[in-house]
Amino acid sequence: MKAIQRRTVWRDGAGRSDDLAEEMPVAFEYNGISHAVMLATPDDLEDFAVGFSLSEGIVARRRDIFDIGIRESAAGISLQIEIAGDAFARLKAHRRSLTGRTGCGLCGVESLDQVRRELAPLPATKPFPLAALHAGMRSLPAQQLVQQATGATHAACRVGRDGVISHVREDVGRHNALDKTLGALARDGIDARIDTGSDALIITSRASFEMVQKAAALGIGTLAAVSAPTAAAVRLADKLNLNLIGFLRQESCVTYSGHGTLEEVKA
Amino acid sequence: MKAIQRRTVWRDGAGRSDDLAEEMPVAFEYNGISHAVMLATPDDLEDFAVGFSLSEGIVARRRDIFDIGIRESAAGISLQIEIAGDAFARLKAHRRSLTGRTGCGLCGVESLDQVRRELAPLPATKPFPLAALHAGMRSLPAQQLVQQATGATHAACRVGRDGVISHVREDVGRHNALDKTLGALARDGIDARIDTGSDALIITSRASFEMVQKAAALGIGTLAAVSAPTAAAVRLADKLNLNLIGFLRQESCVTYSGHGTLEEVKA
Repeated sequence: MKAIQRRTVWRDGAGRSDDLAEEMPVAFEYNGISHAVMLATPDDLEDFAVGFSLSEGIVARRRDIFDIGIRESAAGISLQIEIAGDAFARLKAHRRSLTGRTGCGLCGVESLDQVRRELAPLPATKPFPLAALHAGMRSLPAQQLVQQATGATHAACRVGRDGVISHVREDVGRHNALDKTLGALARDGIDARIDTGSDALIITSRASFEMVQKAAALGIGTLAAVSAPTAAAVRLADKLNLNLIGFLRQESCVTYSGHGTLEEVKA
Repeated sequence: MKAIQRRTVWRDGAGRSDDLAEEMPVAFEYNGISHAVMLATPDDLEDFAVGFSLSEGIVARRRDIFDIGIRESAAGISLQIEIAGDAFARLKAHRRSLTGRTGCGLCGVESLDQVRRELAPLPATKPFPLAALHAGMRSLPAQQLVQQATGATHAACRVGRDGVISHVREDVGRHNALDKTLGALARDGIDARIDTGSDALIITSRASFEMVQKAAALGIGTLAAVSAPTAAAVRLADKLNLNLIGFLRQESCVTYSGHGTLEEVKA
């Protein structure tokens, strides 16, 4: 499986070689039962499996995932995830209530009253330094290898209070890139819930309602997007006590939620 | 319901007023049965209902949609769509096979073998002039009103062989923007299936597998994206005989699929 595919394209009538980002259907199966299919870049699939399972609340802890199998076929990729009995019982109970229905766009959701999950607000923490976010933006582009080759992928990464980035992950889907980074953190034993002020996440896309929900579910106190957030994302960030930054650049940004809990130190 | 919301944000420590794009859960109900929920910009909802229903193959023709009701609640918006009996019977049969499962990301899809729909390739048509696409790109930005205010929305539009654009629609989701434009065309009685060479679509985002599938389902012969396509989108465009353009600018573009069926006339 390759995240990048080469083919001939045409520009001004002349053929040339070009690199394209791969996009494949990736199916999530929990204890043998199909749950969801997403189109995603077929890279870092264990991270994707762990991150999605945690950020969607299917499991509460990394250790509730016992095993991850990856099976490829002509139709796509299956992630066969074995989870703890109590987590699977909860998932089955939720799914029973969905009998005969299909969901879309929102994972496992098919009616309006299921859109908003009940998440506790994050605890108040020490201010996160904006200068660290700007520093992160200076080093991120060099690590977006699929994006450099294809121009078609978003990236997510962790940034520490020192401005050092890590766990850069890429995907054609912005929510998938975020899940991959969240999964990579969990697989490295990093749990932001212990100190929500210790880490921030950077995403190279816009910020949606779902991205705020995913970040907060993992205890991330600060989410910074390169483009604009939606109004719903800002309202949810207010409610969950998450610092939401938009239009993050190397020297500037806009604070949408959490003003006063961010150190406005010039980069 | 407003697509644009105003609130106070902070930049360099100073508060100022900013416009944000609204994002709301929008539920699709067919003949009283929940089908899918998507996060979308709450604008042009009748177009969205018609376009999604057609591009996902839930109905084959505009006239199979009898009525569209829009109901707002605190949880979001319900689109209550009444469709013809045979279309609903097909949808129910498909949904029965999904009993106890939930779908995600791909509409109504929860296992890998359901990802690819069986669409007939488009008929070969007369070359589409690239100059018309470039002309479209010169007029599109001025009509992206939500994007101008918020920086958070994608747009789709139709462009004719004369370079004139119409049916510009915007949404926080790129697939939703495309569906809204497809729905707006159908509501105006424009059926590209009669002549797949008569119209092209421009989208301001990247081009995914699903967008190629949606465009081809409505008989659109040429899809032009401002950013990159994925490898899967190009493969599907090849298979469906759809012209796929990427990196569309006012003066240039890259042809990924359909070289030889596009008139390479300089803008």
